[in-house]
Amino acid sequence: MTETNKLDLWVRETHQDTVALEFRIVGTLFSGRSPYQQVDVVETAGHGRMLLNDGIVMISERDEFVYHEMIAHVPLFVHPSPRRVLIVGGGDGGTAREVLRHQAVERCVMVEIDGMVVDACRRFMPSVACSLDDARLSLHIADGVRYVAGTEETFDVVIVDSTDPIGPATPLFNRDFYQDAARVLAPDGILISQAESPYYDHDIQTAMLGNQRPFFPRLHLYLLTNLTYPGGLWSFGFASRGPCPIADFDANRVAASGLAFQYYNPAVHRAAFALPSFAAAGLEAVLDPVPL
Amino acid sequence: MTETNKLDLWVRETHQDTVALEFRIVGTLFSGRSPYQQVDVVETAGHGRMLLNDGIVMISERDEFVYHEMIAHVPLFVHPSPRRVLIVGGGDGGTAREVLRHQAVERCVMVEIDGMVVDACRRFMPSVACSLDDARLSLHIADGVRYVAGTEETFDVVIVDSTDPIGPATPLFNRDFYQDAARVLAPDGILISQAESPYYDHDIQTAMLGNQRPFFPRLHLYLLTNLTYPGGLWSFGFASRGPCPIADFDANRVAASGLAFQYYNPAVHRAAFALPSFAAAGLEAVLDPVPL
Repeated sequence: MTETNKLDLWVRETHQDTVALEFRIVGTLFSGRSPYQQVDVVETAGHGRMLLNDGIVMISERDEFVYHEMIAHVPLFVHPSPRRVLIVGGGDGGTAREVLRHQAVERCVMVEIDGMVVDACRRFMPSVACSLDDARLSLHIADGVRYVAGTEETFDVVIVDSTDPIGPATPLFNRDFYQDAARVLAPDGILISQAESPYYDHDIQTAMLGNQRPFFPRLHLYLLTNLTYPGGLWSFGFASRGPCPIADFDANRVAASGLAFQYYNPAVHRAAFALPSFAAAGLEAVLDPVPL
Repeated sequence: MTETNKLDLWVRETHQDTVALEFRIVGTLFSGRSPYQQVDVVETAGHGRMLLNDGIVMISERDEFVYHEMIAHVPLFVHPSPRRVLIVGGGDGGTAREVLRHQAVERCVMVEIDGMVVDACRRFMPSVACSLDDARLSLHIADGVRYVAGTEETFDVVIVDSTDPIGPATPLFNRDFYQDAARVLAPDGILISQAESPYYDHDIQTAMLGNQRPFFPRLHLYLLTNLTYPGGLWSFGFASRGPCPIADFDANRVAASGLAFQYYNPAVHRAAFALPSFAAAGLEAVLDPVPL
């Protein structure tokens, strides 16, 4: 299958030293070392361009729509009037792109700690970073934890689009951060946070959701499946000061928006909250039941 | 992480020459060459024992429950009275194990072409093959296509638990086979068939569902996510001579069964039929809408 004389190049990410995911690449487009992490963009053979931080796949052009549609549209179609959105992390710009498709959004603040990620994606992943110059977007290259602790602004939706809790994103999984996030949320506010793999990271999920629980009257977990994360199945936390992701979801709003999606739709919205038994096991005490 | 002096052994499956999945192994338990395929059982470091046919992962002890619960319980909790079940393929025994947990099932015929798979799993995967000696099971080592073409028996549920359409399972994706499968189904009968990856195998799905469509008044696709198939997200076809997987599903039957599951539950049952937009694209003409 490989053309003769071409290098047999694969990028390889191992997880928990027992499983590895590899993607054939045709070359490297960018490699840099920021104060926070190693940042690479590669051109793959089958998955478009791919961003890796510290050797861990963040996004590929082929499947980034899954993660970005699910992190953005679930809260934005549940919140009754999402005008002000805060994105913590999200340096590739994909979450901002999806948030800004909502006409109700008047202001989107994005706080990314690593300017190198933003610059690399602007240059090499324009289909993802394409909305970073939107007039409604206020982009800060800054520490999201400090930003949330210090801001006097309030938001309708806060989205924590972070890497795993092993690098610069570690404080984004802590109790203090969630307390601050709850403080900057308006009364109907919703906090969405990247919540790792139900298969491989049950311990991280338990700790993270336990840290969120004291500050939110409503807490759920919802699922998506992409091509580039270990195990495919992934999750987001849905912490809310009010709205229920099922009872307060009106599918008519999706149709009325006129937006088209590659992954998200009203049936997928509801289905995402149906947890396989193993994924719910041990989390019953911390999660609220979903009226499915 | 690896202990010093131990071999750094990984089993590696590539898919479409662009993506590969690797699992660390501690050794090989069985390797054989049957008339149909290469059969291997390995001991992995993090996923229990694993069966591979022609180098392609079939099941691991860690996540086989996902595939086997979803292939068996979805039709068995939809069919009003599943007394007679036919399994085509399923040599590891996991599908039979889940089918036979239903007390309503009086007779289960299993037709597996490759006796070596059955023998290897009996010996090395007893937690999967544990029901192959159930008195209600009739096991035939034979060609499932010929069996279905020749049998005079009728069944309430037929489950095609096959490998990919590149090896011995190829005829199980053909129109003639589906015509015969429809013939052996009783009036309320349901045909479930392994339907590959929505991400990677859209062409196979289109052909397979197109081949089923003429013989079934109702045709759906449903999803699951496991750890060992490329992309994680996988699918089964739900072809029915009558029952609807949503409208005719009564969650009370699940509770009344007294059965406990690791993946399956009533919310997951319904959610599995919610297709992401990309997965439904191009299949609208062949699939029936789901009343979700």
